[in-house]
Amino acid sequence: MASLESYLAGKREAVERALDRLLPPADTPPERLHEAMRYSVFSGGKRLRPILAIAAYELAGGEGDAVMAPACASEIVHTYSLIHDDLPAMDDDDLRRGRPTCHKAYGEGLAILAGDGLLTLAFAIVLGEDALSHERRNAVLRELASANGPSGMVGGQAADLEGERSAPTLGSVEFIHTHKTALPIEAAVAIGALSAGAGEDALAALRTYGRAIGLAFQIADDLLDERGTEDEMGKAVGKDRGRGKQTYPAVVGLDKAEERARGLTDEALAALERFGGEAWPLREIARFIVNRRN
Amino acid sequence: MASLESYLAGKREAVERALDRLLPPADTPPERLHEAMRYSVFSGGKRLRPILAIAAYELAGGEGDAVMAPACASEIVHTYSLIHDDLPAMDDDDLRRGRPTCHKAYGEGLAILAGDGLLTLAFAIVLGEDALSHERRNAVLRELASANGPSGMVGGQAADLEGERSAPTLGSVEFIHTHKTALPIEAAVAIGALSAGAGEDALAALRTYGRAIGLAFQIADDLLDERGTEDEMGKAVGKDRGRGKQTYPAVVGLDKAEERARGLTDEALAALERFGGEAWPLREIARFIVNRRN
Repeated sequence: MASLESYLAGKREAVERALDRLLPPADTPPERLHEAMRYSVFSGGKRLRPILAIAAYELAGGEGDAVMAPACASEIVHTYSLIHDDLPAMDDDDLRRGRPTCHKAYGEGLAILAGDGLLTLAFAIVLGEDALSHERRNAVLRELASANGPSGMVGGQAADLEGERSAPTLGSVEFIHTHKTALPIEAAVAIGALSAGAGEDALAALRTYGRAIGLAFQIADDLLDERGTEDEMGKAVGKDRGRGKQTYPAVVGLDKAEERARGLTDEALAALERFGGEAWPLREIARFIVNRRN
Repeated sequence: MASLESYLAGKREAVERALDRLLPPADTPPERLHEAMRYSVFSGGKRLRPILAIAAYELAGGEGDAVMAPACASEIVHTYSLIHDDLPAMDDDDLRRGRPTCHKAYGEGLAILAGDGLLTLAFAIVLGEDALSHERRNAVLRELASANGPSGMVGGQAADLEGERSAPTLGSVEFIHTHKTALPIEAAVAIGALSAGAGEDALAALRTYGRAIGLAFQIADDLLDERGTEDEMGKAVGKDRGRGKQTYPAVVGLDKAEERARGLTDEALAALERFGGEAWPLREIARFIVNRRN
């Protein structure tokens, strides 16, 4: 069993190469649009979503590289959501992973378009993967669209935006976290399983795993925002509370939030029980998510 | 042969009903997001794109309602593009079809999300159309994604945005018009043909038709912006020239622009020659596009 660190590094490298191949070159006209898209995609992310997709694919018996396009699509959709979330009309963030956000570097208009372009491109990339049957491509796209649309991520963002006007409750925070973060992470796992043609039971177990670590991830993120330093995080910290953001710690306090994150990790691990030793990367990732420092 | 007017009215009504069925109800949480999406979709548009898709579908031998989801998807993508185009960071328009633009009515953040939600939903709607084979759904989606992504509409918008900094040339105007308007309109026609499983030759002829009327449509739009009144157009007019916008009339003058629009109409009609009398709606639409007053 390799270490998680070397597993993640190897997969991350494969994802970087695939993203570079799948995105249009930076000198494609109009150049500044394509530059802006690449600027945001290649900004040193953890590549958690595509790695989850690949790990789920391999666990579900998938072989070869057919998962790479769907995996990259989930990362590209994630990047678009960050670009739009950082805009002045949304979270108004100047820094992301230690660099100016897309609209700071390229202007608001182009940042909106770079996000729009990436979202559209994510669908095109899955559609172009001939190694997947039309039926599997469809299943992957359905997952991507439903987890990231108005009934998923975009719905969570809207609730988050509206939520700044009212006091957070457990119900409102869970709605936002589930839609904004947990569903897209569950989708990344499901996309891997669907690309491999996983059976219903395996898919359901992997969904449970994905949703649990997705929620744990968001709670860990909120805890890091309260406790981390700007240096570690590569972005402004402590802003959420100042803005009256709907976060788990704001509703139940730091200790209970941490307890909940650990409970979700246990749930995720329990969902993997039906799989053998080869599920180790997913198990390690579940533990890593609540222990990370950035 | 019915009149074009009653043909358009009948199809428009069918499209309105389908859109109402395909969009989530306005009371779906988060409610303001879904309200904003519906506000923009139901704002009295001409429904040109879905009607073109339906007409091409019927001409290519398609039967039943299987084209309705793809047709509506093309209108929903069009609506998202208008919402984002109207934003302060883009064209900064307060009025659209005689009503406040989405960001004026719902705020910028929610308008960005309403656009994002509609784009994502458009893909989901096509994916959910079980009356089309997986292969046809994918062909429709590929068309939708490529015509509206960075190599299509979004690319045209970015070139338009960047173009405000430099003097328009015939080359820059044609790049913008082709990408921003002609490709999405060609795609609407192609989507109808692909939904019907049209053969290669029929598809190619319909693409030529769609691209030509798409370009003619944009030139006619620019002419209306110069000559129309705010009352007729339901939005501010004469703004393009004031902003140094890249338009056809700005480069070649009004008369030459009008001549070019009529030449494109002839091209479109020539492409339909292989079809018989049943192509009359597409022929009439080509003529209507350059003669309309709004």
